[in-house]
Amino acid sequence: MLVLKNCRFLVTQDEKRRVLENVDVTVENGVIVDICENAETAGHDVIDCSNHIVMPGLINTHTHAAMVMFRGLCDDKELREWLNYMWKLERYLNEDLVYKATKLACIEMLFSGTTAFLDMYYYPNSIVKAAKEVGLRVKVGYFPTSNLDYIVKMFKNNPHVIPYIIVHSIYAVPLEIVERAIQEAKRLDVDVSMHVSETRWEVYECKRRYGLVPVELLYNRCLRNDHLHLVHLGWVTSWELEYIRRCNVKVTTCPTSNMKLATAGHFPLKELLSMGVIVGLGTDGAASSNTLDMFREMKTCILLQRHSYWSTDIGVQDVLDMATLNGGKIFKLPIGRISPNYYADIICLNIKKPHIQPLRRDNLLPTLAYTVIGSDVDMVVVHGKILLSESNREQLLGEALDTASYLNHKIVDVLEKVKDSHLTHAERPPFNTYSH
Amino acid sequence: MLVLKNCRFLVTQDEKRRVLENVDVTVENGVIVDICENAETAGHDVIDCSNHIVMPGLINTHTHAAMVMFRGLCDDKELREWLNYMWKLERYLNEDLVYKATKLACIEMLFSGTTAFLDMYYYPNSIVKAAKEVGLRVKVGYFPTSNLDYIVKMFKNNPHVIPYIIVHSIYAVPLEIVERAIQEAKRLDVDVSMHVSETRWEVYECKRRYGLVPVELLYNRCLRNDHLHLVHLGWVTSWELEYIRRCNVKVTTCPTSNMKLATAGHFPLKELLSMGVIVGLGTDGAASSNTLDMFREMKTCILLQRHSYWSTDIGVQDVLDMATLNGGKIFKLPIGRISPNYYADIICLNIKKPHIQPLRRDNLLPTLAYTVIGSDVDMVVVHGKILLSESNREQLLGEALDTASYLNHKIVDVLEKVKDSHLTHAERPPFNTYSH
Repeated sequence: MLVLKNCRFLVTQDEKRRVLENVDVTVENGVIVDICENAETAGHDVIDCSNHIVMPGLINTHTHAAMVMFRGLCDDKELREWLNYMWKLERYLNEDLVYKATKLACIEMLFSGTTAFLDMYYYPNSIVKAAKEVGLRVKVGYFPTSNLDYIVKMFKNNPHVIPYIIVHSIYAVPLEIVERAIQEAKRLDVDVSMHVSETRWEVYECKRRYGLVPVELLYNRCLRNDHLHLVHLGWVTSWELEYIRRCNVKVTTCPTSNMKLATAGHFPLKELLSMGVIVGLGTDGAASSNTLDMFREMKTCILLQRHSYWSTDIGVQDVLDMATLNGGKIFKLPIGRISPNYYADIICLNIKKPHIQPLRRDNLLPTLAYTVIGSDVDMVVVHGKILLSESNREQLLGEALDTASYLNHKIVDVLEKVKDSHLTHAERPPFNTYSH
Repeated sequence: MLVLKNCRFLVTQDEKRRVLENVDVTVENGVIVDICENAETAGHDVIDCSNHIVMPGLINTHTHAAMVMFRGLCDDKELREWLNYMWKLERYLNEDLVYKATKLACIEMLFSGTTAFLDMYYYPNSIVKAAKEVGLRVKVGYFPTSNLDYIVKMFKNNPHVIPYIIVHSIYAVPLEIVERAIQEAKRLDVDVSMHVSETRWEVYECKRRYGLVPVELLYNRCLRNDHLHLVHLGWVTSWELEYIRRCNVKVTTCPTSNMKLATAGHFPLKELLSMGVIVGLGTDGAASSNTLDMFREMKTCILLQRHSYWSTDIGVQDVLDMATLNGGKIFKLPIGRISPNYYADIICLNIKKPHIQPLRRDNLLPTLAYTVIGSDVDMVVVHGKILLSESNREQLLGEALDTASYLNHKIVDVLEKVKDSHLTHAERPPFNTYSH
């Protein structure tokens, strides 16, 4: 048993969105069993949380973790040109590189309070290996050409690895593959995750090819089931929102990445939330957003929405829900909340920082969404296991730096090769596989 | 003499915007005297920077530092309603509260790499006292009703305190006060700083009252001199930009605050930069932006500009210049650059962090603007004096926490009083003084 003792503040994210003071959280076999005052501690592992905000671990519902290796390499291009460059680089990926880079990304996520991430990249086995070693939960994508029956069987009832099927996008994958992927998802009861309506170009290209805009097309051809998770939707039309609602489609927005790549558009968060659609929050890969810090992403999400709507309707509770509760629903796991019977994915933020002060219960939630940053995270628990604490921080940091140093050498080689490459326009690496 | 030894990376921000590797920076009497390899160290204070990015301290050109005390108190209101609430709270300010809150803010700024800030608030003597104790440079505002001759004389040739004249805005101050302030500024060779064209309401209110939009009005009535620093400009018209250029007006944008308060509009950064206008970057007060972290502000600035222009033209170097070089020009001091003869305002970022890796010279600048956060700052030097290092961090933190605890008590009292207040619409505290 593990007891988080004297939590100075506890953000439950339960039905009533309670913020409690000076309570204990008891965990047994990876599951939260009790929240009370004066919990029994004899014989249990005890963590003192009297200087901490304790809250559910953050859930990043769209990333390409291994792309931390391309951080800072292409920062002034708009999406299609950027993508073209990434595709060039990705020709030189291999199992080992993706494993190492995902490992570094997992440590970055752990250090900034992310306990579960939905990843979309090449070499899923490498991703699973890295996530497992660091201890994070992962919803990991497999291409439609994989042996999906075997994969689904392999991870059946595993709460740490949730497989799903990757479709890159309507513009990069033939429509029959998209349709087959969604049919397979239905048959195997897994999800499909795909990029949709990220750019204006994409929307008109889809209209040109198929006579319909993207979500409309999906609805007409294959969307009528609830296994879809659509990412970006910056150029979705108002009438497509109703299709999303009707089919229980889940969606994710990645505001930092979209803004940085100048995709413009507008993710209609207010309309989606008011329709009851489950909306998650993602950092996208660090090659576009440059950091996997979900606290920063929460703030950017609110800021952009307020700027776009000329209104302050979107607020703290909305993005907190997106980064916890809604993430849990996209994972289809009991995570994202501190309540009995939920998995114990919990993070502890150190409040003894100048930028977090003055702090009281009445200004706690805004401080969480607008002020706190990933580096305020002191301790991380996933499935009841302490993954990050004072005692192993240095060791994990050492591992991250060794990995980074290895990656630095490899990247310099790749950059050298790409420079010499005669490809002016890269092909996306093997067809119906995946990229961003 | 102080030597920053073996700077792993040195971001000079000099004419050529050089990034150097493994160099030493020598400082004497508060001034940078040399950048070289193998500097003389015998008998000097030496700081090892072999795991650091060394760069100019950041310059925050618009803030209301003491408002850290209102952090997280009013986060879901649009600007005018928010302002109304702040004005209620500010009726209970006093010299002591502003001093304590500014002290906390200065420690927050120090911890996040800001070495100079332009502050606009009540009780300037309290602001100067706090800034002096922490060691930051401050450009501090005095109301037009102050004994300006005395103040200017008092701070003559003081490189740590630069006085200027505060005008809140055209909408909150009678036009004759605005004009007098600008005339006085010219006579005394100091600047005037004011909020201009922050909201659409303000622009039309000005048009209604005076028949001209704000910058147009200033130009017609008093703008024809180069002592003006205008902040926000989210609703400036295209033809007003030419007035700004022609009069060498300096400007500052505060993207986080504007977005959070849903002022919408668009700060025309591309046009201003291409016209050669000096543009600074500000966090505004923490009651609206919730953090004084200039690294976060740099990123938000780029993101918003890219979103608004649908283009990636604005990039890393632009915001780095805004937060360093241009800030120096707004201060009218030799700061914001690491070059011989510049004041030694220098910060050192620890690169041994998972989120900053992998790091090389070729991805350094993007990492600085998009990934680094204030808490990556390890050491801070202002005017050659080490203000923050491993050896005094705990002591400063203790001071910040004690101050915060004092403020928490006071704020609870103020909140109680405001709750009972019968004012439905607050008056701005004493006329021709100042607020946000």
